[in-house]
Order: sequence, then C-alpha cells, then structure tokens
Amino acid sequence: MPPPTDFSTFNCSLARALAIVGDGWSILIVRDATLGISRFSDFQRSLGIAKNILAERLDRLVDAGIFARSGEPRARYVLSAKGYALLPALIALAQWGDTWVSDAPPMLFTDAGGRPVDTVRLTVENGAADVVGLRVRPGPGADARTRAFLSASKRPHEG
Amino acid sequence: MPPPTDFSTFNCSLARALAIVGDGWSILIVRDATLGISRFSDFQRSLGIAKNILAERLDRLVDAGIFARSGEPRARYVLSAKGYALLPALIALAQWGDTWVSDAPPMLFTDAGGRPVDTVRLTVENGAADVVGLRVRPGPGADARTRAFLSASKRPHEG
Repeated sequence: MPPPTDFSTFNCSLARALAIVGDGWSILIVRDATLGISRFSDFQRSLGIAKNILAERLDRLVDAGIFARSGEPRARYVLSAKGYALLPALIALAQWGDTWVSDAPPMLFTDAGGRPVDTVRLTVENGAADVVGLRVRPGPGADARTRAFLSASKRPHEG
Repeated sequence: MPPPTDFSTFNCSLARALAIVGDGWSILIVRDATLGISRFSDFQRSLGIAKNILAERLDRLVDAGIFARSGEPRARYVLSAKGYALLPALIALAQWGDTWVSDAPPMLFTDAGGRPVDTVRLTVENGAADVVGLRVRPGPGADARTRAFLSASKRPHEG
C-alpha cells in the first residue's frame, strides 16, 4: 500500500484543515470538548473509543494546537482558540445530519441564554443576502496549479 | 484489528454525517463538484487520487444520495440537493483553514455577482446576535444514553 496522502501539502485550505481534523474520531473528540469533556477517561467513555486510538488522536490534536494539555498526572485536554474556532464547521455538519440523515435531532444547540442556534447560512454583505451561485477564484496564496485548475473549471453549480 | 467503528449508529447527527462524509477524500470530491467537476477522469486529475479509491468513494457517495450518476458510458457525477447542502460546512472548514493553517488563502469564494462570501458565523435570532456560550440539550431524537450524557456534562466552554 502507498502511504496515505498528505492533505497538508495541497494548495487548499479545506484540504489543509482535513489534514488536521479529517477523520471522524478527531471531530467527535472536539465535539465532546465543546460539551465540557476534558479528561481522557471521559472522552473514552463518551465515545467508546479504543485507548490507543484516543491517545494517538489527542497527541496529534495537541501537536496541531487544537488542544492544550493541562495538569498532571491526570491531564485535562482543553480546547484552544484554534480548536474552538472549528465550531461553526461542526455545527453546520451536525445541522446537515439533522436535516438529511437523522429522523429527529438527537441534540439541540442553544446559546448561554437558551436561544436556539440558527441554521448556518452562506451569506454576502454581512449577512444581507444568501449566496447564490458559488464562484471560486485564486487567492493570494494560490499556486500555479490552482490558478490553472480554477481557470479551467466548468461553470460551478448554480446553488 | 476490530472493524472500523460505524458512526451511523451513534445518536448524534454529527457522527451520522461523518459516517457519510467523514474522510478527507469524500469531502474533497464534493469540493471539486461544487467547482464544476463531474467526470471521473477530471476528479482523478484534480485530486491525484488512485482510481480504485476514487471509484469506491464515488460509489459510496452515490449510494448515500450525495451524487446522482448521469449518462453512459462516460458517466457524470452530479451533486444532489443533499450534496450541495454540505456547502456551508465545507466553506466553514475552508475558512478555518484560511485563518489557522494557510499563510494566505489559496482560493476566494464569491457569489455569482462576485461578492465575497462572509465568514460563517454561529448566530441566534435570525442572525441578530452571535452565539455566546454554546449549550446542548437533548432533542426529540435523543436516546437514553444521550440524555444521561448531556445531563452529566460539565459546563461547556464559554465561547
């Protein structure tokens, strides 16, 4: 078998994000942390995950700056600002699951005041309008291959 | 080795979503589709993915209703409404990569009129306010274990 593809080398911020949190367990560990879990044994109990897999994922997430380890000998794993910033993506994916997969939502999200979190939307002009017809163009970090790819792309989906 | 965990059995819409699009390749295939790619050979060229892996992922995404197959013998893979509905989660994750991983954004997203897509935000009351202090409570689809888990959770992160 060839080695797994290293998405961090792609000229794409989505792929680079997936290089860090592109497997289900990592996302679910971050999910648990947003629910207040911080101890190894609590992640293990919540997820029913094997110890060696959990240890490997937590080490990787600490190395990636998603979690900070705090305290000994029973360490806590605390989400960093970088880790907490994943929340819009996670909530958007959970809402997709609510709409397209689950019969009824297993969990409801609110703010501290109990107000329901809105469905995540793609907007322009500070939320004044919904995105219609996504377009993608090269950004300041685009390499030659990305530029060629985006100029060759067919008309994107008219969303 | 034990069989891989089946996230679709979790009482969690995020886990159920990850059961369908919880690997990097599947997300990047959907990404390419939103950029207008629809042919097997074009996905292959864009992603540098092995043929057997691409074929397996496309079959799974068709089975999951993310893509519809259209035309023979050179099939096109066309995103369904279910597939296109992944866009907010994908853009949110790409924006996270732009902010926390890439030095400069490789790609810029706009609507059909060229207006930049806003940074995805978590809001309440139809966008009137940003979410502060995420809370999670059992929804109508919660099972007994989810109810116990959520009532036992420590105070979540004050975002």
